Amino acid sequence: MMHALRQYVPILQWGRTYDRAAFANDAVAAVIVTIMLIPQSLAYALLAGLPPEAGLYASIVPILLYAILGTSSALAVGPVAVVSLLTASAVGQVAEAGTAGYAVAALTLAFLSGAFLLLMGLLRLGFLANFLSHPVIAGFITASGILIAASQLKHIFGIDAHGHTLPELITSLAAHLGEASIPTLVIGILATGFLFWVRKGMKPLLRALGLGSRLADVATKAGPVLAVVATTLAVWALGLSENGVRIVGAVPQSLPPFTLPGFAPDLLKALLVPAILISIIGFVESVSVAQTLAAKKRQRIDPDQELIALGAANLGAAFTGGFPVTGGFSRSVVNFDAGAETPAAGAFTALGLAVAALLLTPLIYYLPKATLAATIIVAVLSLVDFSILRKTWAYSRADFAAVAATILLTLGLGVEIGVAAGVLLSIALHLYKTSRPHVAEVGRVPGTQHFRNILRHEVETAPHLLTLRVDESLYFVNARFLEDLVQSRVTEGCAITDVVLMFSAVNEVDFSALESLEAINARLRDMGVGLHFSEVKGPVMDRLKRSHLIEALNGRVFLSQNDAWEALAGKARPCTGAAQPS
Amino acid sequence: MMHALRQYVPILQWGRTYDRAAFANDAVAAVIVTIMLIPQSLAYALLAGLPPEAGLYASIVPILLYAILGTSSALAVGPVAVVSLLTASAVGQVAEAGTAGYAVAALTLAFLSGAFLLLMGLLRLGFLANFLSHPVIAGFITASGILIAASQLKHIFGIDAHGHTLPELITSLAAHLGEASIPTLVIGILATGFLFWVRKGMKPLLRALGLGSRLADVATKAGPVLAVVATTLAVWALGLSENGVRIVGAVPQSLPPFTLPGFAPDLLKALLVPAILISIIGFVESVSVAQTLAAKKRQRIDPDQELIALGAANLGAAFTGGFPVTGGFSRSVVNFDAGAETPAAGAFTALGLAVAALLLTPLIYYLPKATLAATIIVAVLSLVDFSILRKTWAYSRADFAAVAATILLTLGLGVEIGVAAGVLLSIALHLYKTSRPHVAEVGRVPGTQHFRNILRHEVETAPHLLTLRVDESLYFVNARFLEDLVQSRVTEGCAITDVVLMFSAVNEVDFSALESLEAINARLRDMGVGLHFSEVKGPVMDRLKRSHLIEALNGRVFLSQNDAWEALAGKARPCTGAAQPS
Repeated sequence: MMHALRQYVPILQWGRTYDRAAFANDAVAAVIVTIMLIPQSLAYALLAGLPPEAGLYASIVPILLYAILGTSSALAVGPVAVVSLLTASAVGQVAEAGTAGYAVAALTLAFLSGAFLLLMGLLRLGFLANFLSHPVIAGFITASGILIAASQLKHIFGIDAHGHTLPELITSLAAHLGEASIPTLVIGILATGFLFWVRKGMKPLLRALGLGSRLADVATKAGPVLAVVATTLAVWALGLSENGVRIVGAVPQSLPPFTLPGFAPDLLKALLVPAILISIIGFVESVSVAQTLAAKKRQRIDPDQELIALGAANLGAAFTGGFPVTGGFSRSVVNFDAGAETPAAGAFTALGLAVAALLLTPLIYYLPKATLAATIIVAVLSLVDFSILRKTWAYSRADFAAVAATILLTLGLGVEIGVAAGVLLSIALHLYKTSRPHVAEVGRVPGTQHFRNILRHEVETAPHLLTLRVDESLYFVNARFLEDLVQSRVTEGCAITDVVLMFSAVNEVDFSALESLEAINARLRDMGVGLHFSEVKGPVMDRLKRSHLIEALNGRVFLSQNDAWEALAGKARPCTGAAQPS
Repeated sequence: MMHALRQYVPILQWGRTYDRAAFANDAVAAVIVTIMLIPQSLAYALLAGLPPEAGLYASIVPILLYAILGTSSALAVGPVAVVSLLTASAVGQVAEAGTAGYAVAALTLAFLSGAFLLLMGLLRLGFLANFLSHPVIAGFITASGILIAASQLKHIFGIDAHGHTLPELITSLAAHLGEASIPTLVIGILATGFLFWVRKGMKPLLRALGLGSRLADVATKAGPVLAVVATTLAVWALGLSENGVRIVGAVPQSLPPFTLPGFAPDLLKALLVPAILISIIGFVESVSVAQTLAAKKRQRIDPDQELIALGAANLGAAFTGGFPVTGGFSRSVVNFDAGAETPAAGAFTALGLAVAALLLTPLIYYLPKATLAATIIVAVLSLVDFSILRKTWAYSRADFAAVAATILLTLGLGVEIGVAAGVLLSIALHLYKTSRPHVAEVGRVPGTQHFRNILRHEVETAPHLLTLRVDESLYFVNARFLEDLVQSRVTEGCAITDVVLMFSAVNEVDFSALESLEAINARLRDMGVGLHFSEVKGPVMDRLKRSHLIEALNGRVFLSQNDAWEALAGKARPCTGAAQPS
């Protein structure tokens, strides 16, 4: 009982050994992450089409729940760029941005996503995330980064523009470009330039000025806060908000409120598929980050428990004024680098953000939206990485096709179609590859017991003996292929009296393939040709014995291909069949 | 040029050697098939919800086109039970049975299906049919047989009833049972009983009465005609059509008319998916029959050319008053048994049916619909075969699940959902099986060069050497599984200094798996553990060499597992890594 509880509530394990040293490390990490998260949370709320406080709320209770239930010591949960984009895309289809319905739809999306993640975790379905192949994820994230950056340009120009695809966004931006606000543009460009410089040039400068490496690091992380403070002061001092610079405006001073998601059947139905998509993408992003960080400390995370923790975090977001959340890459890396030792660091971060939500929100009244957009643009452009196209092209055209399709369709038709197409194309390409398996004719490497492809190695063969190594599991998609192949090889002439199928690479024979093997056996028997198997794996043999194939076999099953060779190669049998050239 | 023409128009090949003997055999077969097809064509039109003459029309021009373009000498093309049922289901969703719109929708369905088949043939996509696994096809045909039989019961009872699923049909039949027509029921039961007897008891009786086997066969085939004649005469003589027995009524005396399918975008859009489904199912049924019959004569058929021929046949049906057609099982077997030698037999059958359409239709005015329903019921119940459930249960639970789901969903939710679910479930189960591959730790069988699972065989191992035989291709679905497995095996202690991955059963390594192998290599290197590969297949090695994995490998690639054993087993290396129990 206690054991089961500890499995599902990891805090009961690490909490027992929590000490002052761990506390100190966690607290320092929490301060650094809090400073970084304040502008980031506001910005991602903007990206999701929600009021800025939603970003803070989405970072408080979810972080606490993850601290209790999660298995990664460094993962920082909250709004992240890609999930915020997906939220904007999904919620935008059922409600108008800025309305109360929009906020409720975002809560509902978090609720459905949380429920789905929790269900997957309880059913231990974490492996489903593997259906997103690495190239599809890489392509999707790159394309999302471009879409997100494009969607933020309207804030840099101070214009209205909208769209969920790159062509829509570009058209809309172009149409409204004449309305651009010069002061906004100046702030936007300066903030973006400053933030890029912070990433690349600030740390070396601070080190050159004599700062310690650690302190230089912290200062770099505070760059966005600096941009926020500077631009807010500028707008306030110069009265720019009366000159067309859009500002964040009044933000309530409040702890996360208690909210209810919508339970109208139509709303639930409309958001279900997007919620599943968001859950899976969020989970994959979160688990990748958590695994990478855990490996650095030789720790392990439990993907199924991660599903439960992320599910709880999203349910928490749904009831406290948030929107869908997941473990974010940049915040987690910062947390890890800052020395976070346990999930308690997350709890302290939540505390810091709660203080900010309660006390600091009046200070951001004059914060220009252009600054938040600059924060997002600089963050997401680091996700854009086209090298995956070059790498996959060099390695495998099928993987390249999956990446290219994912990128193009995400940019051209939107995030949901893009990632769905990527997944389906990956599966289809895999099935296509296995539908025409590699089958090699093999012979013996002289003086050894090894058998190799006759086209690649100098090997011995016997004219009446055809040995085919089947390089694929046999299942319905390729069952008929083997049937046709054996048929065409044997009908080429009367010379062949024995066929050996070498099953060293056959990991499964499904029922369709069993029927095909029975058909091959029957046809070869009619032609007076023997059919033998060699190197059949244990699990495959166990299964074949449950059918009638082995007893009906017009030949033998050999443990090794060498046994088959020694039994069959020497004895030329007379050709008794009526095999004719076809 | 001429060669290409012959490839696409097989009649140019077999037509050149056509002689009097082949003509005689083909003509006899055509007479027998024509006698059998007249009632069957009328009945399947009824099943599809169309006027009876549509069944005759659908058997004339399509047969001719298939004779010119097809590669099977015995295949008989026309309306078949399952495709007629699918037609009724698809067309019933866009038009009311009995209206002009219904007939146009059926033509449109044939047109779309023909265009799709033709396209698949020209693109040589015949292998796509393999995605229907044997168990799914078997389950679908069994469930369809039950649905068809149930849908015909209304004609036996002489009542109105409708529905596309078994619960709908049963409910509807039960609701109208009070309106049953006693004379219709008598005719229906007698006809059904007689036709069952013809199948089982008539041939032995005729043989006992002294008839030759061949003649007894022909007489058996004529059984349905006998039932048609007897019941028609009975209705006419007893005036039963005024007592509630529904009859076929006036059928135009005409050759197939020229008709146009509908080209309204909404109609095309609504019928596109059903047309694709009908095409694939029809193609699979047709190719299975054609291949079975071809194998008996050691002939081969060309699946891609079959697609072209069936596509042309359906286009022909669309422009001559028909509905979707394919190669039928029973009619093709009859054609084969009757001695058809070339596709010309089909052309002669078309001629016979054209004569029937032109001259004989007045004779079936009083033909009761109950007789046609009896013909259908007796024909389709022979398709119902639940033994597939037992066979798959014994062999593989995954295949059993696919069959059971296909049967239940087809019966419960209709043919389209049933077969789509079967296909998707087959693919999902296959992916699931490969997502957690069998990985065996292997050791050397003493005195040999063979390596076998340590759990199944008495083998030699070395304590510091971990050899894992990976029994599956590595791709995105299972890439992380291997990563986790190696990690957990190696972190068990410091004893292991070398890991060999034996790739004899790895037929592919996709980009996701490559990245996983790179991650495994990096982690093992950090732990001071060597990573080696053995028995890597040629095509896999070619691809790996295009990446940086091999040059970055913290170990070697061995041609055979025996080489790896001899190089690594003897030399215990000191444990240099910091590996700790996790």
